[in-house]
Amino acid sequence: MRITDIREKAVSLADPMSNAGISYLQMTASAVAIDIDAGEKGTITGYGFSSVGRYAQSGLIEERFAPRLRVVEDMTGADGGLDPVRGWAAMMANEKPGGDGDRAGAVGVLDMSLWDAAAKIEGVPLWRLLSERYNEDKAHDRVPVYATGGHYYPDGDLTALTDEIKGYLDQGYETIKIKCGQHGLDDDCARIEAVLALLDNNGARLAVDVNCMCSTSDETQAMADAYAPYGLAWIEEPGHPHDFELLTGLTAYYDGAIATGENLFSMSETYNLMRYGGLRADKDLIQVDPALSYGVVEYANIVRLAEAGDWPRSQMVPHAGHLLAFHTVAGLQLGAHEIAARPDFLLGGLQAGVEISGGAATLPETPGIGFETHEQLWAVLADL
Amino acid sequence: MRITDIREKAVSLADPMSNAGISYLQMTASAVAIDIDAGEKGTITGYGFSSVGRYAQSGLIEERFAPRLRVVEDMTGADGGLDPVRGWAAMMANEKPGGDGDRAGAVGVLDMSLWDAAAKIEGVPLWRLLSERYNEDKAHDRVPVYATGGHYYPDGDLTALTDEIKGYLDQGYETIKIKCGQHGLDDDCARIEAVLALLDNNGARLAVDVNCMCSTSDETQAMADAYAPYGLAWIEEPGHPHDFELLTGLTAYYDGAIATGENLFSMSETYNLMRYGGLRADKDLIQVDPALSYGVVEYANIVRLAEAGDWPRSQMVPHAGHLLAFHTVAGLQLGAHEIAARPDFLLGGLQAGVEISGGAATLPETPGIGFETHEQLWAVLADL
Repeated sequence: MRITDIREKAVSLADPMSNAGISYLQMTASAVAIDIDAGEKGTITGYGFSSVGRYAQSGLIEERFAPRLRVVEDMTGADGGLDPVRGWAAMMANEKPGGDGDRAGAVGVLDMSLWDAAAKIEGVPLWRLLSERYNEDKAHDRVPVYATGGHYYPDGDLTALTDEIKGYLDQGYETIKIKCGQHGLDDDCARIEAVLALLDNNGARLAVDVNCMCSTSDETQAMADAYAPYGLAWIEEPGHPHDFELLTGLTAYYDGAIATGENLFSMSETYNLMRYGGLRADKDLIQVDPALSYGVVEYANIVRLAEAGDWPRSQMVPHAGHLLAFHTVAGLQLGAHEIAARPDFLLGGLQAGVEISGGAATLPETPGIGFETHEQLWAVLADL
Repeated sequence: MRITDIREKAVSLADPMSNAGISYLQMTASAVAIDIDAGEKGTITGYGFSSVGRYAQSGLIEERFAPRLRVVEDMTGADGGLDPVRGWAAMMANEKPGGDGDRAGAVGVLDMSLWDAAAKIEGVPLWRLLSERYNEDKAHDRVPVYATGGHYYPDGDLTALTDEIKGYLDQGYETIKIKCGQHGLDDDCARIEAVLALLDNNGARLAVDVNCMCSTSDETQAMADAYAPYGLAWIEEPGHPHDFELLTGLTAYYDGAIATGENLFSMSETYNLMRYGGLRADKDLIQVDPALSYGVVEYANIVRLAEAGDWPRSQMVPHAGHLLAFHTVAGLQLGAHEIAARPDFLLGGLQAGVEISGGAATLPETPGIGFETHEQLWAVLADL
């Protein structure tokens, strides 16, 4: 099997929403298609789409990574199927170690396309292929999910926030994550209390993402003091992703769960988070995003690394609500899948035919990742 | 003062050389020119050129960072001069923290161009502007330098290696760095001994770069055992840049100096190296490369960080031998400047008029960085 063509385009994700760190007015993502000559099965096209928050990677894909993929002579693996590991090794040749940033997203979206093609060639949904290759054929029966929303908007207020969250509860979600941290702790608490009122005042159903707002231990402790009475499901991304001292101080001070890792992009960065971050494997969550972190090949190694360090798979909860993460959570039996729940968001929701109820999703049976059955994404991928 | 135009092109650095980690057959770099409307002084053009090892950043520059720079309304600083910090803040707006990789090189080469323009507007060489803005007007009188070479070549042998090193000694260098690690410790020792014979068998005049060849503590210890008898100036980049445990184990085992940091690209990554790497501030060297690490704005903060952590400036020795690093070493009084000493290498040597003798270089007086007086680099920059 060979790659016969690779196409990429940048797609706008422009949106008036913001979090405590960035605006999304200029946000972009890469849409990718890779054609595979699959012998008797003809040409199979695999698709990829960047996860949100780190921009399109058109330049890196065209300058470095697509050219290296195009010259791989044989993409066939030992079992006769398409083997994305071969593509991964070719893409990372002559790349120095360290510097896991934009290139991790460029490689990630190409790796994703190869996995989509590999699953289509096998005629199975990706979660099943991942289950076969990395999880002894085991998979979730139903995938635990939670809804993310509650961003800041220019004209947003508490009524708009609670209206948004009511909509998610109507869709069948049980656990909700909202943004905090943009306007101080009093405002945060007002947001939290407004949403908790919709959740039977059960803090275990609400997570809060502060997008790195804290720079000092005084700030993390003030935040912890303010949020502790609510008994939240978790506090997400308290400080700079490399600030392991800040994180260690917070986990020593705050008894509730902390989630982080969405701004780390490799196995070596994840290892250091586990080694130096003061996290507790029985409650904290690691949110490395496979789509932004060199794709499934690296992420499968990250899951192995976690298990070798006594981190159960239940604590691995990928960032951002990407369809790739959905299959990864399902096929590798990870903790939960995040869903960007706003229906008009390009990466929002899941593919058609997946049903959400009681805080869990059914498994799709469409071969591959299923971009073709995700209305908004397919609208931008179809013309590739 | 405003930016009126930004131009970039990718330049090939293709070369048959290799190190223990990568080949340079496909290596590229970005060449940049930024025009500044400097009022009565007319239009001043600042130039930049990527450091080696991390490829051109045409895509990231065109997609994200040049557009953000182009819309900065006023680049004037508090002292009336061009202030690259304003550019830096604009470039990093709406970038999430972490992920310091390719974007650090894209921002770095643009920041470099702004510093070149800023110094030209002041009519001073960059080292003097850096001395004024960041070092209380102090600077090196002469800049300690060392020559780097001794890469692997397809038809290389010990005779070619020693011929190459003899050429560097003839140019006035005292300390030499060579590559090791590609063909095992016996071959390494043969290379080391062949070069030491040219250096009065004085190990303090020879450094060895193994480009991350060690993955286990057995490997670092075997390397340390093999190299220890030579009393080398330092061993560089022993393992993966994020592997602080490996590094800590090596510094506990080996009494000689270790150099690392060229594959870390930010203040937060440098902090963690200092915090967790087991390095010894009285002997080890930190080689973060300003051109690849968001430029001078970030690097000046890294130097402050080092001093706050009791790391003397003598231990800061930037990677790769870039003209920007030369000015930074000179103006901030850092430990030494690396020079890629092969005369035909595009980034090799220093600008015309700088004299090297006794292991130190004189200071240039050309305004700016001096690309215009570096024959090979100007040949590729002039048409921008």
